[in-house]
Amino acid sequence: MVASVSSRVAELGLELPRAFCAPPGVEFSFDTARVTGNLVHISGHGPLDGSQILVRGRVGEDLDVRQGYDAARLTGLSILATLKELLGDLDRVSGWVKVLGFVNCAPGFNETPAVINGFSDLILELWGEQGRHARSAIGVAELPFGIPVEVEAIAEIR
Amino acid sequence: MVASVSSRVAELGLELPRAFCAPPGVEFSFDTARVTGNLVHISGHGPLDGSQILVRGRVGEDLDVRQGYDAARLTGLSILATLKELLGDLDRVSGWVKVLGFVNCAPGFNETPAVINGFSDLILELWGEQGRHARSAIGVAELPFGIPVEVEAIAEIR
Amino acid sequence: MVASVSSRVAELGLELPRAFCAPPGVEFSFDTARVTGNLVHISGHGPLDGSQILVRGRVGEDLDVRQGYDAARLTGLSILATLKELLGDLDRVSGWVKVLGFVNCAPGFNETPAVINGFSDLILELWGEQGRHARSAIGVAELPFGIPVEVEAIAEIR
Repeated sequence: MVASVSSRVAELGLELPRAFCAPPGVEFSFDTARVTGNLVHISGHGPLDGSQILVRGRVGEDLDVRQGYDAARLTGLSILATLKELLGDLDRVSGWVKVLGFVNCAPGFNETPAVINGFSDLILELWGEQGRHARSAIGVAELPFGIPVEVEAIAEIR
Repeated sequence: MVASVSSRVAELGLELPRAFCAPPGVEFSFDTARVTGNLVHISGHGPLDGSQILVRGRVGEDLDVRQGYDAARLTGLSILATLKELLGDLDRVSGWVKVLGFVNCAPGFNETPAVINGFSDLILELWGEQGRHARSAIGVAELPFGIPVEVEAIAEIR
Repeated sequence: MVASVSSRVAELGLELPRAFCAPPGVEFSFDTARVTGNLVHISGHGPLDGSQILVRGRVGEDLDVRQGYDAARLTGLSILATLKELLGDLDRVSGWVKVLGFVNCAPGFNETPAVINGFSDLILELWGEQGRHARSAIGVAELPFGIPVEVEAIAEIR
């Protein structure tokens, strides 16, 4: 990588939302990310600004593929905010390993990879070669509070 | 941790079920947990006593949120039994990393985190700060043999 | 292991398909597998020959359990092709850790473990004791492009 990830974030004019947190009056019984060895396991995130849900609905019904893609990109930004809060600096993420994306699918909608690309493309734009990752894109019946996309991931840190 | 996990189990009056195993006449083509390095990967478990299913049904239809939460707690006890059998002593689990919870959801039911809390709260009661973990809570169409909850996890061992 | 995995593949008369790749005109924004430390994380695969889908449909509706099992075995062969391409030699896979199998289920079909056994049995036939792995088998609403089975996995490499 020539440029740092932080400078790429600025260059692309990306604004990070607030980090994923519990809504007022609620306490999470999980962490939004957890480090083991040189890996960070990132909890399932959605298109969130703090605890506020930015997009709801099923892809293939309430949202089309492009809107699903955009929701997956917003999910990526929420994950970046979590990593920045946890690690202090996104440049501590030295590479990506694995992504598991879930899409809230209307019956018959199965272009789940095209939706999760919204997440993967963001990571590749920022980390380049180091952003390459294994992935699955699954269509599920229900996601928490009606979010259209949920992504969990494993990344390498230094 | 001041007290050991085993003594916390006793203190809370928890009784572990029999470890997850194949029903009579069936042979599993998978292990209920598998160690790699200092991590143990735990197979998807449900609310089980040995091979016996303790709770069946969809959350939001056959079970309400509280019953789903209780099924997730029973799932946690089944996982503890598996870990005790594999490791000899629950105190060999030094921390938790990642939990992936699946909820058998009736159409329209999406409070999946409230259900999987039944698992997470048990782990936090027993391991305290070391029990903190990243997590996803997903609603799915079908779980094996109609169980309401399935949880797989990664923990650290010493 | 007495025999090498490659010689077991030959012995069983297994033919590996082409490795999982993007269809013409499409570029994947993910890798089909990714190495971190001594682990390889394998992306979700289906019953594929290169980018060509060999089996489509829902288990419990378009396919019965046995056909689902066969699709899971084909999924395993596709994963072997990916590993061979990535690592040069299947004998570099020294053991298996974790398998997450998704089954495209018709409503009411929940014998998901019997389907994913098609994958697990193949791995055990080839790696024996070293092929043992933790596993979850989940029924989902939709899989990419209507494939009946999707499997992602973690294996150890040397």
